[in-house]
Amino acid sequence: MATGEFDLIGQYFTNKSVSRDDVITGIGDDCAILSVPAGKQLVVTTDTMVSGIHFLCDANPADVAHKLVAVNISDIAAMGGQPAWASLALTLPNYDCEWLTVFSDCLHQQLHRYGVSLIGGDTTKGNMTLTLTLQGFVDQGKALPRHGAKAGDLIYCSGSIGDAAAGLKLLIDANNPDNAISENTNEVVLTDSEKGFLIARHQRPTARVSTGQALVDVASSCIDLSDGLASDLKHILNASSRACGTNLTANIELTALPLSTALQTYVSNALWPQYALAGGDDYELLFTVSPENRAQLEKVMAEHDLPFTHIGEIASVSADQLKQIEQQKQREPQINYFNDKQLTTLALQGWDHFQ
Amino acid sequence: MATGEFDLIGQYFTNKSVSRDDVITGIGDDCAILSVPAGKQLVVTTDTMVSGIHFLCDANPADVAHKLVAVNISDIAAMGGQPAWASLALTLPNYDCEWLTVFSDCLHQQLHRYGVSLIGGDTTKGNMTLTLTLQGFVDQGKALPRHGAKAGDLIYCSGSIGDAAAGLKLLIDANNPDNAISENTNEVVLTDSEKGFLIARHQRPTARVSTGQALVDVASSCIDLSDGLASDLKHILNASSRACGTNLTANIELTALPLSTALQTYVSNALWPQYALAGGDDYELLFTVSPENRAQLEKVMAEHDLPFTHIGEIASVSADQLKQIEQQKQREPQINYFNDKQLTTLALQGWDHFQ
Repeated sequence: MATGEFDLIGQYFTNKSVSRDDVITGIGDDCAILSVPAGKQLVVTTDTMVSGIHFLCDANPADVAHKLVAVNISDIAAMGGQPAWASLALTLPNYDCEWLTVFSDCLHQQLHRYGVSLIGGDTTKGNMTLTLTLQGFVDQGKALPRHGAKAGDLIYCSGSIGDAAAGLKLLIDANNPDNAISENTNEVVLTDSEKGFLIARHQRPTARVSTGQALVDVASSCIDLSDGLASDLKHILNASSRACGTNLTANIELTALPLSTALQTYVSNALWPQYALAGGDDYELLFTVSPENRAQLEKVMAEHDLPFTHIGEIASVSADQLKQIEQQKQREPQINYFNDKQLTTLALQGWDHFQ
Repeated sequence: MATGEFDLIGQYFTNKSVSRDDVITGIGDDCAILSVPAGKQLVVTTDTMVSGIHFLCDANPADVAHKLVAVNISDIAAMGGQPAWASLALTLPNYDCEWLTVFSDCLHQQLHRYGVSLIGGDTTKGNMTLTLTLQGFVDQGKALPRHGAKAGDLIYCSGSIGDAAAGLKLLIDANNPDNAISENTNEVVLTDSEKGFLIARHQRPTARVSTGQALVDVASSCIDLSDGLASDLKHILNASSRACGTNLTANIELTALPLSTALQTYVSNALWPQYALAGGDDYELLFTVSPENRAQLEKVMAEHDLPFTHIGEIASVSADQLKQIEQQKQREPQINYFNDKQLTTLALQGWDHFQ
């Protein structure tokens, strides 16, 4: 049985990795040595998951591994990139063989799924904290930015949204039955399959790598939905407003939001927007496309059989709204939500670790 | 005052970074976008520091930032690489403006010192855990490996060793005066300047980037001293033994070890080896050079005024030793230590988080 740091790396993380020609040296030296293919730029992202914050302390280590990989790959997907290499920083409170076996098996399985080679990392002792740094490629100058949206662009998202938040609610309610009754959810009418679907959307998201790649040369901006649509759309609006020198806002049609049947069954009408717009953790892609590229978008998405939904438009902030922003000292434009074309008011907030 | 995650990134970590032409997009999108220069390979390393394990809970945040950068850059240095880009995963228990100001100021200062651009990261809530992923370049095929040592190669290390362990001991003893007396150290005879030197060697190490680069095309293997010479030399021996298909060992002359005057003043003769060989945290480079390259080594190190010391030789394991290894079921050859050319026995152990 391995008992030391070096054995831990050897037993659980070395020699199980995807073999890639561009990995000259993987785990086992001071650094990994890697070759970036000619004509490609590198895209790099880092995400941390903390026990008790991002997952329950007794979470299945396979779920933890699955999500750790997906949330990172999702950032590469949002750039239209091809994931390639991962480094894992693993801080663990103790040497738990069973946990490590289940975690590393699922980690390798997920990295294989996306064709990613584990090239290195660090193992340390402390409260359970997992940081994955993912690297991938994009063709030179072809990355999908956050800052490319313009007034008039159409807003889309992939897949369905709000499921992950519903899945989390189901898990929390399972530990606290009183809570379920007070929140206007309808757990009792869900089938086991629907429950399983929602929980899997929270625990085992899929990164939209093919969708991101299909959007290269088509979308004007793109972001992955980690904090919730309302919050992530503001990142696109802020970055794009700065880039084009115009204050941009978005008009979102609530009835157009892509909701799964399971979510519609589970949540009352009044709560849909909270789940769909502020739930977070969906790891779908939110993107904008100019009207001229609409046909091209529909063609490429159909070719690859990729689900996507038109949910609104980018717009310039009106003179009235600008005045309001200044008067109320808002830092950013509010998104306009429409319920069947009627402007409506919503109070939503994304996830923020330090608030 | 910034109070949220996005403000935290904006206030402390954006727009203070080294500007580099190869950073197309830094902090602020789903991924950083980077260009690797033609003819270069990428070298990547990740290191984590945990509060209470790698640094005292009340450590000066500037010291923490300094060391976090140095230990990562040191891995790039050990490959003969040029550091370029860093991603920071910062897990903090609360939003402490004073801590963040001091930490981020020193982090940026250190990254500037090495010419490294901060390209992204993640901020999360939890026990203080800091992970830095560093990327750098090496000329195609020129990285210094661990596995290139051969029997007959000369063993060298840069700078002086054991100082960091002595610095740590001084800090620990300052909190526990009884301890100082029991351990045969001579704190009373140290000047303030010597104490400061030893403590700085622990808290504020310097990564040997110039030394690593000077060793390209000269050294046959290289590693940085993080766990202690005895432990890190075994990594070279194990990797090189596998690579050349011969069981290699090392003969180390204890009287040749480069010890600072401060360390010699502080530690009794009997304790030198423990500090110098098992102390760890020195972040000097340990490397091997073939006898044919010795003149070239001396020339290039003199040209750049880089301190280095010849401390031993790589050797094949003798038939007697091989028999002993098999009988005692050792996993690896023991290093042979000589005290003024007399073979001697030492009981040493490197740092291992899970033992």
